[in-house]
Amino acid sequence: MPVVISNIERPHKAVLAGFDAALGVATVHEAQGRKGLLASYLRPIYRPIHIAGPAITCEVAPGDNWMIHVAVEQCQSGDVLVVALTSECEGGYFGDLLATSLVARGVKGLVIDAGVRDVATLTEMGFPVWSKTIFAQGTVKETLGNVNMPIVCAGAEIHPGDLIVADDDGVVVVSSADAESVLASCQARETNEEEKRKQLAGGELSLDIYDMRDRLKAKGLKYVDSLDPD
Amino acid sequence: MPVVISNIERPHKAVLAGFDAALGVATVHEAQGRKGLLASYLRPIYRPIHIAGPAITCEVAPGDNWMIHVAVEQCQSGDVLVVALTSECEGGYFGDLLATSLVARGVKGLVIDAGVRDVATLTEMGFPVWSKTIFAQGTVKETLGNVNMPIVCAGAEIHPGDLIVADDDGVVVVSSADAESVLASCQARETNEEEKRKQLAGGELSLDIYDMRDRLKAKGLKYVDSLDPD
Amino acid sequence: MPVVISNIERPHKAVLAGFDAALGVATVHEAQGRKGLLASYLRPIYRPIHIAGPAITCEVAPGDNWMIHVAVEQCQSGDVLVVALTSECEGGYFGDLLATSLVARGVKGLVIDAGVRDVATLTEMGFPVWSKTIFAQGTVKETLGNVNMPIVCAGAEIHPGDLIVADDDGVVVVSSADAESVLASCQARETNEEEKRKQLAGGELSLDIYDMRDRLKAKGLKYVDSLDPD
Amino acid sequence: MPVVISNIERPHKAVLAGFDAALGVATVHEAQGRKGLLASYLRPIYRPIHIAGPAITCEVAPGDNWMIHVAVEQCQSGDVLVVALTSECEGGYFGDLLATSLVARGVKGLVIDAGVRDVATLTEMGFPVWSKTIFAQGTVKETLGNVNMPIVCAGAEIHPGDLIVADDDGVVVVSSADAESVLASCQARETNEEEKRKQLAGGELSLDIYDMRDRLKAKGLKYVDSLDPD
Amino acid sequence: MPVVISNIERPHKAVLAGFDAALGVATVHEAQGRKGLLASYLRPIYRPIHIAGPAITCEVAPGDNWMIHVAVEQCQSGDVLVVALTSECEGGYFGDLLATSLVARGVKGLVIDAGVRDVATLTEMGFPVWSKTIFAQGTVKETLGNVNMPIVCAGAEIHPGDLIVADDDGVVVVSSADAESVLASCQARETNEEEKRKQLAGGELSLDIYDMRDRLKAKGLKYVDSLDPD
Amino acid sequence: MPVVISNIERPHKAVLAGFDAALGVATVHEAQGRKGLLASYLRPIYRPIHIAGPAITCEVAPGDNWMIHVAVEQCQSGDVLVVALTSECEGGYFGDLLATSLVARGVKGLVIDAGVRDVATLTEMGFPVWSKTIFAQGTVKETLGNVNMPIVCAGAEIHPGDLIVADDDGVVVVSSADAESVLASCQARETNEEEKRKQLAGGELSLDIYDMRDRLKAKGLKYVDSLDPD
Repeated sequence: MPVVISNIERPHKAVLAGFDAALGVATVHEAQGRKGLLASYLRPIYRPIHIAGPAITCEVAPGDNWMIHVAVEQCQSGDVLVVALTSECEGGYFGDLLATSLVARGVKGLVIDAGVRDVATLTEMGFPVWSKTIFAQGTVKETLGNVNMPIVCAGAEIHPGDLIVADDDGVVVVSSADAESVLASCQARETNEEEKRKQLAGGELSLDIYDMRDRLKAKGLKYVDSLDPD
Repeated sequence: MPVVISNIERPHKAVLAGFDAALGVATVHEAQGRKGLLASYLRPIYRPIHIAGPAITCEVAPGDNWMIHVAVEQCQSGDVLVVALTSECEGGYFGDLLATSLVARGVKGLVIDAGVRDVATLTEMGFPVWSKTIFAQGTVKETLGNVNMPIVCAGAEIHPGDLIVADDDGVVVVSSADAESVLASCQARETNEEEKRKQLAGGELSLDIYDMRDRLKAKGLKYVDSLDPD
Repeated sequence: MPVVISNIERPHKAVLAGFDAALGVATVHEAQGRKGLLASYLRPIYRPIHIAGPAITCEVAPGDNWMIHVAVEQCQSGDVLVVALTSECEGGYFGDLLATSLVARGVKGLVIDAGVRDVATLTEMGFPVWSKTIFAQGTVKETLGNVNMPIVCAGAEIHPGDLIVADDDGVVVVSSADAESVLASCQARETNEEEKRKQLAGGELSLDIYDMRDRLKAKGLKYVDSLDPD
Repeated sequence: MPVVISNIERPHKAVLAGFDAALGVATVHEAQGRKGLLASYLRPIYRPIHIAGPAITCEVAPGDNWMIHVAVEQCQSGDVLVVALTSECEGGYFGDLLATSLVARGVKGLVIDAGVRDVATLTEMGFPVWSKTIFAQGTVKETLGNVNMPIVCAGAEIHPGDLIVADDDGVVVVSSADAESVLASCQARETNEEEKRKQLAGGELSLDIYDMRDRLKAKGLKYVDSLDPD
Repeated sequence: MPVVISNIERPHKAVLAGFDAALGVATVHEAQGRKGLLASYLRPIYRPIHIAGPAITCEVAPGDNWMIHVAVEQCQSGDVLVVALTSECEGGYFGDLLATSLVARGVKGLVIDAGVRDVATLTEMGFPVWSKTIFAQGTVKETLGNVNMPIVCAGAEIHPGDLIVADDDGVVVVSSADAESVLASCQARETNEEEKRKQLAGGELSLDIYDMRDRLKAKGLKYVDSLDPD
Repeated sequence: MPVVISNIERPHKAVLAGFDAALGVATVHEAQGRKGLLASYLRPIYRPIHIAGPAITCEVAPGDNWMIHVAVEQCQSGDVLVVALTSECEGGYFGDLLATSLVARGVKGLVIDAGVRDVATLTEMGFPVWSKTIFAQGTVKETLGNVNMPIVCAGAEIHPGDLIVADDDGVVVVSSADAESVLASCQARETNEEEKRKQLAGGELSLDIYDMRDRLKAKGLKYVDSLDPD
């Protein structure tokens, strides 16, 4: 039977604040060992944008957005609503009315493995959505589904309370258990990259910074002046 | 034999004005019973944008834009040109010269089930196009086709003079016979949504506004505190 | 064995300057006989944008961006880096660190038949990329490939030193041997189009400007007032 | 309101018999002026196969096959059931039980702009289906739709009673009004092709049979022995 | 760190035997509440085919099939090997040599969210593969990944030892905990369908067998003789 | 100007015979250093099938098959006709009449980066085609193109006279200059694989045959009995 779990665990405020401060999706994905990315077909409806927050998970039937209405009530300030479909279907499951309700609750954004509509209004409101398509097709309210149970969304497994980070590059999930350590890795990575960025901006080559020349040579890379030397 | 119909019926000015005043594609589609949407792969070349106007219909052969030149002459101020292909083909059937000609005639925009080019210039000119792709591939002028005959464009049947509404969400067609009554439904819907929007912005839940709780319970939805209660 | 060619021929400065001055992809493609377009799935990460410059070509293995690091060193000011895959693979082969390095060398942009990441930063930096997708997926550095050998990228054959022109409409390649004559054709075409644009803006029809009416009639096009005349 | 039309007009038996006798989809499409093809993504679940018969049309909601059950009752011996979706959705709307019922009524096959399941059993039964995908995903029975009203299926407009011809190449629709004259054109075309086939099999070239050499020369085609003659 | 789990729990032999006896993917999917289907793009390389067995799970890097070699050793007679990618990539990760090894171990088949090659030989050998594509592109052996850890494959979560059922309709996973009860539901469903099949074959309508007429009427379905009655 | 080259160089008969004797596409691709594959969307219209022969190259305009008629005359016994499009377009550019003509000339098959029709007849005739789609859409005869000039087909560069090998796995091209040495590599590879196949069939593991265990350990792969040992 479909079930709504009302009480989920979220990462600590300090951890959330750390991710909120502009840690990008690419960085988070690298820092946790290159996993957790949702499929690249999920695109933000406007750019630039960056959000981070715990996932409220929701499952909907094809052409039916009823459970999104149910999920809204489970959302708290700072959350990110994540919607998966039980069967792939185009359609605009979400529009400006639902967004108004989520904004009233302080929700940061929506990730949905389907279509969204009213995108001009959503953009004006500053409510970000990562979706598979933009489509005005309406939905019905007939079929139950789970809220706050584990889902697979755009190829990634997401548990309620997992940390979602989303920006112009897409969406990544960090399991709540790993959130703190991944944050630390992200920050170390950022510091390291800042240093590299300065060197590269100054004209140094990554071939030298990362000491790649010997390995390239060992693997057999040959440099020649031109194909037809005279 | 290919034919050009020069005299088509358009919806009344008052009706056109009604749709022109910002009635969105999602609203129109809902108000006419969830039909008339063109496929979601038709996307506007810039956003935000909203237009409404009667359709001039045009059929072109693959890789051949000759009939668009013929269709231009049939366009009047306020019209929307809608182009279908007799066989799916990538290509940039339309660019800034044709747009210049349409702008000179007061045409509001183009809907084309194919590619468009010169999109930087079109954006600068403020001439909106909803297309399947952006592609510079040129076309020839060899094959005839119909102008102002019924077409199927991006999966929707469109008759000349039908009302086209297009915005950031996509494109919808309203048959000219239904335009007046659909306008009334749209306006009623907008009024109703305005009310709902205020309630939702104030923190009320759609579960309560639409009285969904009993029906959810009757269908068997269960609320539990957590999966592993202690 | 994989090879890096360090010394390639580039088109003359004057020719490059000619293309740099806003000759669009559609114009170039038409002027060289409707060839040389890369596939339409290559899209710029921001718009509007226009670049032109000689190609540095680079081949990478699936999920491996090592050779891009090698290719950076071969890039000179004004060049465009063009990356092909030996096997189709999603992934973010390129991000803000590599872009910082290319900017330091005066490179104008990147064309890549794969994914790119850090697009918010790249947009802020004003470093344009034409890519197949935007995806944060990381890559490894294990496999060699050629730099500055001929490649097929997005369906088009590209030799090192060929001229790349890229804008909102996509990407086109001009062989270095043809660059000068294509430039002349482009300029002639632009002049001619400017004239046409004025006529069209003044309300003349392309049917008349291009003398199409007789040919349409000869092919059998019929004009009728309406389908159901009374 | 959704409606079921019980009494539709079908083409004459003699006309149906003519199409039934192996007139292929390509021939029919050519004979009626290269129109009427459904999109190429509709593929038969087994090959070789050829059917022809009048269309019973049916509209279903996403993830909902209820109206197929309603449409079955409207099918007579020799008919072809054609199912369109009001919104694109993957799913297996049709399986062996519905096929058993259609076979009991003498229906020749199914054309569906969606998924089908139980294809091993359908193949064994010899009941052909042209579908967009093969997928086991189940559907519900909640939403009404029209039966025997005009539909757009896979990009083609189909009226109830129109003639459907389907084979290994795909599906084509012939309006019932045109069926008789199209049959005559098909037969003429077949006779003509039979003659050509003999000539070609005997080694004559189409360049000569269709007298193309002068036109090719006039358009400027050049024959050269080799690119680098010595 | 990547890990190989050597000791996994498999469903009981009797349960496996039950599924092996021709329970189709559609039936299993329905019997477990319409869940567990892998994406419809996974297609068998030959038809008809039906297998059932416990999953050995394996993760591979893009363009790298090393871990399949590692996974082979973990396979026992009756198992099904299931391979997911850490990043989407075309390529032929599996061919006749690996198949020979799996056949020697009694493995029933392969499910892979990528490409396969040597399909003529695999077909001859009678070793079934459900794959995303058929492609000869070779892979390397450089990157580690997990074997027998939970994976997401073609959109479905799969744990080692879960039951995989695959046939012409696609692939479904049943969690090992549910396997026994799902088997019972499948058998009940089969018995019930057998009865229905006889009724339908005898000409009874599903409208009557399932008592749908009243509900259709209540929802408002109207029957009319024809659109233009005289 | 479009040109037809009548005199091309083909690989030696002995080399062709070597490839003809069942060397598969995967083997050839590996033996020549993992290059030369055409895109995986090219699929044979029937299976199993294997051909090898020199390429006659041909370019056609969108929706226009005129140059195929021209190319037929350039084909000799044993050749493979390879057709590229100047712009992507769906359509059935080739059917049973052209096939009859090619069969009369001893041509082995067709590779076309577009659609094909009459596939039931082609299958009956035993004339293999590798195409992007099967579609009945007709074409015109209006536009010239090159025959026997280098083309890019499905992402691969092909010169006239290059060796084409095609089977159930797809299509690969070998440059005529490399054909002899690639043949030798293929044969060595086949011999080596035959040996491996026997070992694997006998139950030996590739982990041992290829000595992978130490390298896996060195990279850090860990074997554990189970995730939750008691």
